[in-house]
Amino acid sequence: MKMKKVAVILCGSGFKDGSEIRESVGVLWALSAEGAEAHCFALDAPQSDVVNCLTGETVPGEIRNQLVEAARIARGNVKPLSELNAADFPALILPGGFGAAKNLCSFARDGSAGTVDPEVQRVLTAFRAARKPIGAVCIAPAILALAFRGASLELTVGAKSEASAEIEKLGQRHVVCPPSAAHVDEKNRVVTTPAYMYDSAPLHEIFEGIRSLVREVCRMA
Amino acid sequence: MKMKKVAVILCGSGFKDGSEIRESVGVLWALSAEGAEAHCFALDAPQSDVVNCLTGETVPGEIRNQLVEAARIARGNVKPLSELNAADFPALILPGGFGAAKNLCSFARDGSAGTVDPEVQRVLTAFRAARKPIGAVCIAPAILALAFRGASLELTVGAKSEASAEIEKLGQRHVVCPPSAAHVDEKNRVVTTPAYMYDSAPLHEIFEGIRSLVREVCRMA
Repeated sequence: MKMKKVAVILCGSGFKDGSEIRESVGVLWALSAEGAEAHCFALDAPQSDVVNCLTGETVPGEIRNQLVEAARIARGNVKPLSELNAADFPALILPGGFGAAKNLCSFARDGSAGTVDPEVQRVLTAFRAARKPIGAVCIAPAILALAFRGASLELTVGAKSEASAEIEKLGQRHVVCPPSAAHVDEKNRVVTTPAYMYDSAPLHEIFEGIRSLVREVCRMA
Repeated sequence: MKMKKVAVILCGSGFKDGSEIRESVGVLWALSAEGAEAHCFALDAPQSDVVNCLTGETVPGEIRNQLVEAARIARGNVKPLSELNAADFPALILPGGFGAAKNLCSFARDGSAGTVDPEVQRVLTAFRAARKPIGAVCIAPAILALAFRGASLELTVGAKSEASAEIEKLGQRHVVCPPSAAHVDEKNRVVTTPAYMYDSAPLHEIFEGIRSLVREVCRMA
């Protein structure tokens, strides 16, 4: 049996300014366990900011590139997002982290008034048009909410929150879901899991939720 | 039952200049799954270098702090290594990555002629003196080899290699071990797993090895 190739979009390396490291590794681990082949991509562009993850403070003047930092998680095996052709992959997964809401779209700053990076929008539109499954972890469902306004996607970002309210304003349906589970929108072929939206959840429960997400995405792929 | 508190030493965030991200997350995941509480520590000191993990090239002039970068993996919950008191923890685990061989000791540059950072040596000596179990992943066993010269520790860094030969020169016994397993030196209370010493091993196999290591360390703790 040929291995399924799944595209993964990273956006730096770190929960405050890039991809959430643990969620990203969880996705790669679960894909490996499912016998799928992960192919990582990232924008070859600066992060929206650099945050000292010890103090939580923005580092003035420092610039880090999303692709270069994502290579820390991807062990060097990451390509520019411009090279991602939906025709080559039966499925797509977006891990979370603040970078997902700052580098891939402007949801962190603008909420439901936000915009999606054009390259990210191109990729998402192509996967959706081909009815290929898309998985999104943590806050990454907000990117789908912005990219497909008014599509009535069933999405979870965990409990009810300011983020879930903004997602509903975009014409999507928010579903409450615990960190150890994933929500499947069979009709729209979208799978989401809240992960560190529950920021004190035990890591092995978050990995259970990510494992479920990956299993469902691979089933639909 | 009270949760076991396990100390974890990080040294930055990235396989080329800090802690191997996937191995570190694997250790934290396995500790969570075992019902143990991970407490992360790192040297509040510059990394030996900063490497562009996409190109593999050293970035001249750039300085990153081990503690600050480790906070990316630890989600901000990491303390200076100087605050680690062996009396407070029944066990210690060291993930791998080039940082383990460059920031915590000089094994990457000097092999068996290397030295161990004094703060790291202090911590290792205290855990060994108290006969508390120590787990080491990937290249991190080399730190133990340097710290306890001539102790006849049974250690694995995977297959036979230049690294395993240097470890044997230090008066230790190298044991070949696959990535999905861990080697237990019951007498010396040391557990090791090769992880990304097999750099093309599937991630879920590496996690199996790390899970075994963590299970054994928690059993002995």
